This record gives sequence, C-alpha cells and structure tokens, in this order.
Amino acid sequence: MTAAPAFLWPVRIYWEDTDAGGIVFYANYLKFFERARTEWLRRLGIEQHKLREETGGMFVVTRTETRYLRPARLDDLLQVTVQVRDLGRATVTLHQEAWSTTEGQLSDLLCEGAIRIGWVDTASMRPSRVPNSILEALKNP
Amino acid sequence: MTAAPAFLWPVRIYWEDTDAGGIVFYANYLKFFERARTEWLRRLGIEQHKLREETGGMFVVTRTETRYLRPARLDDLLQVTVQVRDLGRATVTLHQEAWSTTEGQLSDLLCEGAIRIGWVDTASMRPSRVPNSILEALKNP
Amino acid sequence: MTAAPAFLWPVRIYWEDTDAGGIVFYANYLKFFERARTEWLRRLGIEQHKLREETGGMFVVTRTETRYLRPARLDDLLQVTVQVRDLGRATVTLHQEAWSTTEGQLSDLLCEGAIRIGWVDTASMRPSRVPNSILEALKNP
Amino acid sequence: MTAAPAFLWPVRIYWEDTDAGGIVFYANYLKFFERARTEWLRRLGIEQHKLREETGGMFVVTRTETRYLRPARLDDLLQVTVQVRDLGRATVTLHQEAWSTTEGQLSDLLCEGAIRIGWVDTASMRPSRVPNSILEALKNP
Repeated sequence: MTAAPAFLWPVRIYWEDTDAGGIVFYANYLKFFERARTEWLRRLGIEQHKLREETGGMFVVTRTETRYLRPARLDDLLQVTVQVRDLGRATVTLHQEAWSTTEGQLSDLLCEGAIRIGWVDTASMRPSRVPNSILEALKNP
Repeated sequence: MTAAPAFLWPVRIYWEDTDAGGIVFYANYLKFFERARTEWLRRLGIEQHKLREETGGMFVVTRTETRYLRPARLDDLLQVTVQVRDLGRATVTLHQEAWSTTEGQLSDLLCEGAIRIGWVDTASMRPSRVPNSILEALKNP
Repeated sequence: MTAAPAFLWPVRIYWEDTDAGGIVFYANYLKFFERARTEWLRRLGIEQHKLREETGGMFVVTRTETRYLRPARLDDLLQVTVQVRDLGRATVTLHQEAWSTTEGQLSDLLCEGAIRIGWVDTASMRPSRVPNSILEALKNP
Repeated sequence: MTAAPAFLWPVRIYWEDTDAGGIVFYANYLKFFERARTEWLRRLGIEQHKLREETGGMFVVTRTETRYLRPARLDDLLQVTVQVRDLGRATVTLHQEAWSTTEGQLSDLLCEGAIRIGWVDTASMRPSRVPNSILEALKNP
C-alpha cells in the first residue's frame, strides 16, 4: 500500500461468497469493493439513495481492472481499501485493495483494482458533471 | 411430480451458484425458481418490465417454503418446474421443483417449494388486485 | 420478537442486495440469515471451516419457511436475529428475523423465517448426528 | 467485434441480475462472462468438475479488465462472446463481450473485457502448466 492512509472497510467471508473451488468467487471482489466505496462515501456524508432523490443522478461504474494475487476462504476477515487516484469533472478513478488479516493486522494483498466511476443522469443514463458538493467532499476527504 | 404437466425450465449450475461445501448454495434455488417463473410468465405473454410500465404494479414474493432433498453440483443441468397451486385476487401460490437430470431425463428431486407472490402498486408497495388480463392468463395457461 | 433476548447481527443494504424493483431481492434474506447464523456460531466458539476439517462434517439447510412483510431498500441498516427453536440429534431449527432500524432502534419486522439445518458427513452428504461439542454449545448459548 | 467468428452464449436478464439503479449490477457481467467461458470449454469437450478430478488442477482468474458502455435491463436477452486472445503455457487470455439483441440480432455492445485465467494445482493453489489436452483443444477450437 502507499504511504497515504487509505479508508479501510472490513469484509467477512461467508458461504455465499465462496465457490466449489473452496475460495471466494472472483466477481465477488467487485461486490466487496462496492461495499467499501459506499461506506467511504457515507463517511464523507454522501448517502447514495438520498443523492439520487436530490440530484436525479447516480454513480455508475464505467471501467474496472483487477488483479487476483491470493485466494480468500470461508471465515476469513478481509480489509478493503479505497483511495482516490484521479478526480475528473465527470469521472472518478479509485484504487482499491482487498487484504487478508491475521490477528487484526493486514497480512497479504489478495486482490487490487482500479475502478472508474462516472456520474450519470438516472433517467437518461447519460454522463453528466459530478455535483460540486460531491467533488468538494472527494477533494478533501 | 403430479400427473398434470408442469412448465419446465433448464438451469445449468455454474461456479457462481456453488459454495465451498462443493454444492449449490441454498439461497440460489430461489433464484432458479424466480427464473423459471419469469419464463413461465413470458410464455403466457407476460413481460414483467412492460407490465410495470403499463400497470404501475408488480409481483413481489410474500411467502416461501422450501425443502432441500439432495445437493446439486458444478456442471449439473437441472430442470425447474412451475405449477399454479392457488389463484386468489391479490396473491398467487405456485409449486416449484428443481430436478437433476441424467441424459435428458429427470432423475432426482433436489428441492421443492411453495412460493406465494402478491401484486403490489410499485410506488406505494401496497397490496392490490392482480390485473384481470394476468388472472385470465394464469387461469388458462 | 419474543421476550427472550435473541442474537442480533447488523446487515447493511448495498447495491448488490437490491433489484430493479428498488427493494432487496427476496433470496438475499436467506444470505442475511446465513451470515447471522455464522456469526452466532462464531460467538459460541464454532468456526465452520475448522469444524469441517476436524469433524469431516458440516451443516446444510434442509428446510426453510420465510414470510416477507415489508421491503428493505438501499442504505438501510437491518438487524438480523437468531434463536434456537428446536434442537434435535441430527437437526436444529432456528427462528430468524430481519428488522429495519431507525436511529439505532429496531423499527419494523421485514422478514421472518424458520430455518432447519442438518448435520451431514461432507464426503457422503449423508445425515449424521450433530457432534456433542456443538450440541452442548447450542444448548447453553 | 473482430472478423473471426466468436463463440456466442445467450444470457437472459432476471431480477437477480439487476439493482436499484434499474440496470444490471456491474459485477454480474463477470458472472455472465464466466458462464460463457464454461459453455465454450464444454463445447471443446472440457468439463471443469471432471478436469479437476482427473488432473487435480483448475482454472482461476488472475486478471480482468472490463469496460461498461451501455446498461442492460430486466428481460433483456444478451449474447456473450468468447475469443482466445493469447495462449501461454500457464495462462490463457480471453476477450469477451456482452451484446444486447434486437429481434435476434446483436445490437449494442454493453460491456467488454479481457480475462486472464491461469492453471493452478487445486490443493496448493500454485500456478502450474495448462495440461496439454486442454492446450490442444484451445489451439484448435
């Protein structure tokens, strides 16, 4: 991880997250990343369902890149990070990592990804500028 | 199965459906049942997204009962049934079964359930009468 | 809820849990119930992946009954309960509820269910007696 | 799409696939891609659960890149493609696309991705050479 402190969100691995290979199904890391992003936004005072009612817009994911390094298993407790990598007028790119933990400490990097989210008008699904109140919150987390 | 012919819908088991126990995760049979119900409604000329736009209402599940008899595994091909058990003005109760197959024939009953669905107004989520056009289609499948 | 104190586990609603009806998809309550059961077992000192390695057995769900009373939505914080209703030699029946919360207090019952779990030998998937150490833990939670 | 014919696999959008934004949840395209890969392997004579029993190995995803261009909605029928982009001794990179359809024809590209899968020994999860029988099948699809 980088020197800058990242937002951390714990994710416990349940039966629903695993597959017959005995490990976490690869698509589920995108769920974990989304949960961490949601909590990070909440920490910044941004609740997505309210946002949608107030602005008529919402974030959608437009691009992802993930690397899978080690598997997670049932009962593991992960920590998922969120860091802003790039902040544009219509899109935000985040760097996210999922770490295994041992006795409360981060131990191994399991999966990392770059997630680009864009702001769209909910009715038309057309790209639009991120509202200023959100941009300000993201600039000064 | 009963003597009356039931609607059949094939469901293939993928990695996403299994868990670390090596078998299909129990909640996923409710997904399979929902897929079969959707296709059964489609066969009756009912498309749910159109229905919602036209009537302002939708079906929601209000009650389920399921029994799990044998496990399904990766690559298995199931057949899922739909039969109307009870048809009311505001609710419909369906009997559904998931069967394993061997060389194209039903072999073992894996899971069976009773699913009660109710009609609600989408905006208020309040129970409401099932539209007549749907009742007619369900009475004469 | 009954007078007896139930185990409570918080579940936050994320995008992954909702569907195009704007509410939590019905099968996902079975995921929430399973998460709460897992944490309740963990609280009793029972970790399922260790259990499986040590005993060669695992719990599987054999029967469920659920009633859906009110919908949950994005960003809601639920509390999910676990209570033993019946304790047999090969099966355990649990009563579980999902409640919405308002300012940290339980407000509305959203979904309730009876979940029967049975102990099976992992290799053969055959029903088997629940290990004594687990029965003791469940009797004196 | 490229000139070379790609393997096509149909995917219907059900309630389980959508979220409260009214569109398919982003992680689910990775499920659709995995279903198409599984069926493409099956077409080549490769069944993954048998493979694992016979070779002690399995494919795991080691890297993904996805671009989301347009949303899919409830009841849409997608077609998902699979094409080999790069074939190494321990890893295979596939290009995959999800298309919407109109009256049986591909209409819009919704999501595309590059998926790198690696062969691992199931017990140790260590990277290993892809078995020759599989390499041959992938070279001459």
